[in-house]
Amino acid sequence: MTEDNRTPVTVIGLGSMGRALAEAFVDAGHPTTVWNRTPGKAEPLLAKGAFGAETVAAAVSASPLVVTCLTTFEATRRALEPAVAALDGRALVTLNSGSPAGARATAAWATASGARFLGGAIKNVPSAVGGADTLLYYGGDRTVFDEYEGTLRVLGGDTVHLGDAADLAALYEMAVGGTLLPALVGFFQGAAAVQARGLKVSTLVPFTVKWFEMINSVLPVFADEIDRGDYREAASSVNLFVAGAAEDDEFGKEANVDMSWHAPLRALLERAVEAGYGDQSISALVEVLKQPSPAASSSTTTPS
Amino acid sequence: MTEDNRTPVTVIGLGSMGRALAEAFVDAGHPTTVWNRTPGKAEPLLAKGAFGAETVAAAVSASPLVVTCLTTFEATRRALEPAVAALDGRALVTLNSGSPAGARATAAWATASGARFLGGAIKNVPSAVGGADTLLYYGGDRTVFDEYEGTLRVLGGDTVHLGDAADLAALYEMAVGGTLLPALVGFFQGAAAVQARGLKVSTLVPFTVKWFEMINSVLPVFADEIDRGDYREAASSVNLFVAGAAEDDEFGKEANVDMSWHAPLRALLERAVEAGYGDQSISALVEVLKQPSPAASSSTTTPS
Repeated sequence: MTEDNRTPVTVIGLGSMGRALAEAFVDAGHPTTVWNRTPGKAEPLLAKGAFGAETVAAAVSASPLVVTCLTTFEATRRALEPAVAALDGRALVTLNSGSPAGARATAAWATASGARFLGGAIKNVPSAVGGADTLLYYGGDRTVFDEYEGTLRVLGGDTVHLGDAADLAALYEMAVGGTLLPALVGFFQGAAAVQARGLKVSTLVPFTVKWFEMINSVLPVFADEIDRGDYREAASSVNLFVAGAAEDDEFGKEANVDMSWHAPLRALLERAVEAGYGDQSISALVEVLKQPSPAASSSTTTPS
Repeated sequence: MTEDNRTPVTVIGLGSMGRALAEAFVDAGHPTTVWNRTPGKAEPLLAKGAFGAETVAAAVSASPLVVTCLTTFEATRRALEPAVAALDGRALVTLNSGSPAGARATAAWATASGARFLGGAIKNVPSAVGGADTLLYYGGDRTVFDEYEGTLRVLGGDTVHLGDAADLAALYEMAVGGTLLPALVGFFQGAAAVQARGLKVSTLVPFTVKWFEMINSVLPVFADEIDRGDYREAASSVNLFVAGAAEDDEFGKEANVDMSWHAPLRALLERAVEAGYGDQSISALVEVLKQPSPAASSSTTTPS
């Protein structure tokens, strides 16, 4: 395949992830046009052979495939607004965070402008762009995916089309990503405790890595329990987690670590026990999460 | 090596993990004595060749190496109380959950009874006992570890002595384990959202598995930032997580999932921003966790 055969691509939004995407396209020999509101960000890419566009409309016009990597769906629509006429006939692929509703709104807006829409998500850090294992998933217009799959695969070897709904990638991104902050805060809490004993946090890493691998190994069991709605065969029961709560308090006190962020997790456990799931699997928490929180109304009123 | 050479072991506490430990010793040819408060639990092990003890004192007397797997350190001391005279000269290895303080109290109690103490933790599910990759770590009397390392390795190929302090395994277990419940609740939240769209939760598993692998890949960076106390080079800034919070709300509302458990996580983010860490690494949260929560006093008083 010669360079001439490669699909011209436009990348709009040159934050750290957008730059990594554009660089991957350039490195793979795709004629790559880039645009960013603040033009300085494009310079290292131009030095590598990317084309700089004067305006966002010119950037969109330059390629049949337009990949955006902005902060939100709203920011994406706002940035593309001056290029709306140029969108007609293009394939628009979004790679930003955002809610399913935001993805649907952007799909409707793009389709009304004559574009075909594919909403994607990249579940990794910028340095992983282009890796054989790097996962990107897309939802939306199947014809865009089929036509440009080879080009999109430049960004990561594990490239998946989830389905025709424009918001599927946003749905899965949020469903998957919801573990990040709580898992990290759990790690930081342990880091603070290890530090309080004068030990290096780096000593905790190999054990935590194994622990997440263990969690990964049990996820299929939990998913199956939830899909069947049957939580009776409990390898790890709700009660087991309830029993651990007192130890957490003692641990936090000794290490001088703020454990107050655990309170609503315990409330979830208590609600599960009250609902009769005490000796059933911890995955029964999903049923509690589907109920509105009894504290939801009172939690917004703080005593003055 | 003949069976006669193998160290006799006693296992006390035959819950699902205790049974798995005892079974591993029996399968490896160790003369294995078992005891449980309710005797029925021992039967499948006796059928495999384990010896049943009539009393806990007889169980402790039967082997130089006594492994306990009870629910807590307190339960361990209570169960062993009638066997206190028999503990003299034994090596006591605990494999239960519990706080560092509980481990220290149990070590002092065991040492006063003439036993040598090694406090351990197994970071996996019962079905993983004996696996080449299964991690067990121990803190406490190094002579016990050196003498019985081969026997203990029957329980898992990744067997580590952390140091001489009796509470180190408890410390690391809690530091590592603190990610479990929050990470699982994050997964269950995503599961509820996927279900709300009529999709199988099992479709979420491969993506979540990759996501935890991604988290694992960035932990060394965070650990290094925390060890250096320098959060200025931010691949993922606190502000980035703050920006995601609004999307979480929209996502929860659409999927009808209770997101109220996020509130204190957001409070931590806000405190980090107030402390000047907004554009620094998310790992700076560890500094916030080391400060007492301003909400700690008011959170215990609920309006009546």
